[in-house]
Amino acid sequence: MTSPRVGVDLAKAYRLLNHGPTVLVSAAHDGQRNIMAAAWAMPLDFAPPKVAVVLDKATWTRRLLEASGEFALQVPTVGQVDITQALGSSSGLTMREQQGVDKFAAYGLQTFAGSVVGAPLLEGCAAWLECRLLPEPAIQAGYDLFLGEVVAAHADSRVFSEGRWHFTGHDSLRTIHHVAGGHFLVDGDTVDAKPLTP
Amino acid sequence: MTSPRVGVDLAKAYRLLNHGPTVLVSAAHDGQRNIMAAAWAMPLDFAPPKVAVVLDKATWTRRLLEASGEFALQVPTVGQVDITQALGSSSGLTMREQQGVDKFAAYGLQTFAGSVVGAPLLEGCAAWLECRLLPEPAIQAGYDLFLGEVVAAHADSRVFSEGRWHFTGHDSLRTIHHVAGGHFLVDGDTVDAKPLTP
Repeated sequence: MTSPRVGVDLAKAYRLLNHGPTVLVSAAHDGQRNIMAAAWAMPLDFAPPKVAVVLDKATWTRRLLEASGEFALQVPTVGQVDITQALGSSSGLTMREQQGVDKFAAYGLQTFAGSVVGAPLLEGCAAWLECRLLPEPAIQAGYDLFLGEVVAAHADSRVFSEGRWHFTGHDSLRTIHHVAGGHFLVDGDTVDAKPLTP
Repeated sequence: MTSPRVGVDLAKAYRLLNHGPTVLVSAAHDGQRNIMAAAWAMPLDFAPPKVAVVLDKATWTRRLLEASGEFALQVPTVGQVDITQALGSSSGLTMREQQGVDKFAAYGLQTFAGSVVGAPLLEGCAAWLECRLLPEPAIQAGYDLFLGEVVAAHADSRVFSEGRWHFTGHDSLRTIHHVAGGHFLVDGDTVDAKPLTP
């Protein structure tokens, strides 16, 4: 089942991550691919849009990202909370070595191809950001911190259009925020700030 | 009015930011102080806990942070949404030059002293993280990206204790996530992921 996708203007791509959702990070290189969950991701710039994400040295996704110079961030929904946690607590490398399959095959995940980068994009997410690594070897090695430029962005048009999230009526597509240990907060009400006079 | 505060074990301090809330960043130097909103902040490590935050070159908070080598992140509540937006869309330097007061005086903000750093901490927030700058001049200059080590952490015990957020019954203390232009998402339901077998 595919979700209705629309392209997101790169000038608005930061809004896909501005509210701090937990993301899934995918990468592919030389016929191999992996995907993992990461709560530590954020926008880094508006135009061109950039992102920052923390990837532990032990992860296979990091190796594929470093080898290919590309990755994708995708924003999972509350309907994907179980698979998000599973992708964040399992090792794609161990799975491949012990079972001979990657996470996509093991969990029966459907993907689609990005328009620019080779990283696989997971069906059913609320948004997707295709990124090219901005190599910064010192902070990658010292802090596990990876920076990227967003080169294409897409969203499920039912919940994001014209630069805004609109989850009302689509509760299963609300985005999620990991606290710890598989416990998540779900996006709830919206509120608009009223101007204050200093 | 002061909120009931408890110290947060540094090993659990990352959980104050793990869900990606919008934060307020404060800093002080040489008798001057400022506070601003920032949606682009995230944890960077568990132990010792570290954080990353993006601060535009134009901000006075950045200058005070660079001069003092210290800052504080605080997690505002939905009850503070108006002041959060005001602190994110006004310039403390302009205010001081044109009106002779800082943002704290202009908006009548109450603060309390941190236990380690000199940055003022705003009363009424859900959590506070006192941080020492980890100087990385190249990424500060190139990406407006600042890294810090968390040296003390505190939370409002009504909504955070034993390493977990618990907002039920305290709706006005729920934390917030800026989308754009003063439009925020509020933390809603909680959900626990169920284990999946690959």
